[in-house]
Amino acid sequence: MHILPNGEFDLIDIISEMFADISINNVEGIGDDCAIINSDGDVIAISTDMLVEDVHFIKNATSAHDLGAKALLVNLSDIAAMGLKPQFSLLSISIPKVCRGEWIVEFMRGYHSVSKQFGVMLIGGDTTGSKDKITINVVAIGRGNSANVKKRGDAKIGDRIFVSGVLGQSAAGLKDILNNEYNTPNAMIHKKPTPTTKQGVWLGKRAYVNAMMDISDGVASDLKHILKKSNVAAKIEITNIPNVTTIEDAVCGGEDYKLLFTVDPKHSEEIKTKFKEMFNSDLYEIGEIIESENSEITWMQNNIEINPNWSGFRHF
Amino acid sequence: MHILPNGEFDLIDIISEMFADISINNVEGIGDDCAIINSDGDVIAISTDMLVEDVHFIKNATSAHDLGAKALLVNLSDIAAMGLKPQFSLLSISIPKVCRGEWIVEFMRGYHSVSKQFGVMLIGGDTTGSKDKITINVVAIGRGNSANVKKRGDAKIGDRIFVSGVLGQSAAGLKDILNNEYNTPNAMIHKKPTPTTKQGVWLGKRAYVNAMMDISDGVASDLKHILKKSNVAAKIEITNIPNVTTIEDAVCGGEDYKLLFTVDPKHSEEIKTKFKEMFNSDLYEIGEIIESENSEITWMQNNIEINPNWSGFRHF
Repeated sequence: MHILPNGEFDLIDIISEMFADISINNVEGIGDDCAIINSDGDVIAISTDMLVEDVHFIKNATSAHDLGAKALLVNLSDIAAMGLKPQFSLLSISIPKVCRGEWIVEFMRGYHSVSKQFGVMLIGGDTTGSKDKITINVVAIGRGNSANVKKRGDAKIGDRIFVSGVLGQSAAGLKDILNNEYNTPNAMIHKKPTPTTKQGVWLGKRAYVNAMMDISDGVASDLKHILKKSNVAAKIEITNIPNVTTIEDAVCGGEDYKLLFTVDPKHSEEIKTKFKEMFNSDLYEIGEIIESENSEITWMQNNIEINPNWSGFRHF
Repeated sequence: MHILPNGEFDLIDIISEMFADISINNVEGIGDDCAIINSDGDVIAISTDMLVEDVHFIKNATSAHDLGAKALLVNLSDIAAMGLKPQFSLLSISIPKVCRGEWIVEFMRGYHSVSKQFGVMLIGGDTTGSKDKITINVVAIGRGNSANVKKRGDAKIGDRIFVSGVLGQSAAGLKDILNNEYNTPNAMIHKKPTPTTKQGVWLGKRAYVNAMMDISDGVASDLKHILKKSNVAAKIEITNIPNVTTIEDAVCGGEDYKLLFTVDPKHSEEIKTKFKEMFNSDLYEIGEIIESENSEITWMQNNIEINPNWSGFRHF
């Protein structure tokens, strides 16, 4: 095999194919926000994310405390995206000598603040040195009832497509940070995203919510995972996408960590009302699941089809 | 708090203290080879290890295939050290551009070969870029009966102390590699340690095996974890320590991944015989658990106390 993987998803395809010969009953592996281990109606959901200095964060542009908080928050988002409650985490971190004093203690305080806020117990990890860069790997583990698990592959034709909040703030914040403006409202959101843990658990309990995932690479990229897994296509009305800056930030920007999900159309008004009552914030209906085998997104602007060249954000 | 942690275990103490306020029933966190989640007599054991380029491995001194194999093997050792069978793994890896072609595919083939050998399913992970160094984080998950779980804190006074094989080969192999001798027998063992998975599961089923852990930082360092957790001390006869090079390599060398465990003295002869029958290899009795509150190791050479300045291997 002489494949030259040039993006994360190509590599994941290679890995999925290579490891397809090792499977265990009642366990779902690669392909969703979390792996799922089933056991008598209960499930354990496990997710992991690696954060690399100068790829995912710039050390001097964020405080150690904020970085520690974010490292856990983004993983809690993956558990929420399956409709489950996070309960445990493991943290591995490699740090250069310069970080071994107050920096790592502040990092751990930030990690602890989020752990405490969400009642997530730190059950293990690894600490080691590095030559000059910081690498962080967090594992989040959720438990819950198997009936509440939401997967990418369960979107149905006719489903309405929703996002759980305004998009593009994190991408706009990253631009501010790269312009040395570290404390704008969007920069703060980029550094410390608001988790959707409670919303995810609430949505997990609604039987009329079909597919769900979190938005980490932008709707343009992430929605395609739902479409491919569900063997359907989508039509999106971009004027309905809630954004604070540009449509490109909202559609292609990374690290929003809002929820993207599909809802049985009979319940699309009901869920908006109930969500508003529960969380005092809006759900946004941005489009519809349609029939098609090509898993493509048709982008509409005021009901007229447009053909933008949008792809998602890539860390790889 | 103005603590300057200068070693892995100091930092772990700080973290353990900071996170002591977040705990969940029937779950054991930091302090053993794995975290343990109990559920109705069954347990899930979770372990994680991070491998950093130029700290844990030198890229040009090992093949991508061997590195992929070793990354998983060392984690399977942690599950074996609790007496359980590994079933799942998650792999996170950040790689620079130069590794994105054949290198990563070969790495995954090595990882797959060990996954296949031990029937361990890859259930998730993360792949991302890095500026110039490789960082690997593996999570291994085992399942089993809670009665078979062996912990560091269960050593009893009078227990005999055993190791499951010859020590110091990996440390000697690392020296060979640093001398540009990449293919000596010890270098091969360093690059691809022999896993103790079957031995760990077998020992897990023996009720007279009390405490157990794997040797990753050398007996001089690792045994102290058992002594501290069990509130006991130990007397070791160094002439009984099986080694191939020097006693320092055997006692202070890292990455042997053999099992270190304590056995009720009434069964110390029986276990040697049965282990030999089962695995056609020897167990080595190296000392005894004694009473004391200082958790120190008394080193003996031909029954005469010596006072060497031995500490374990540190990656931090």
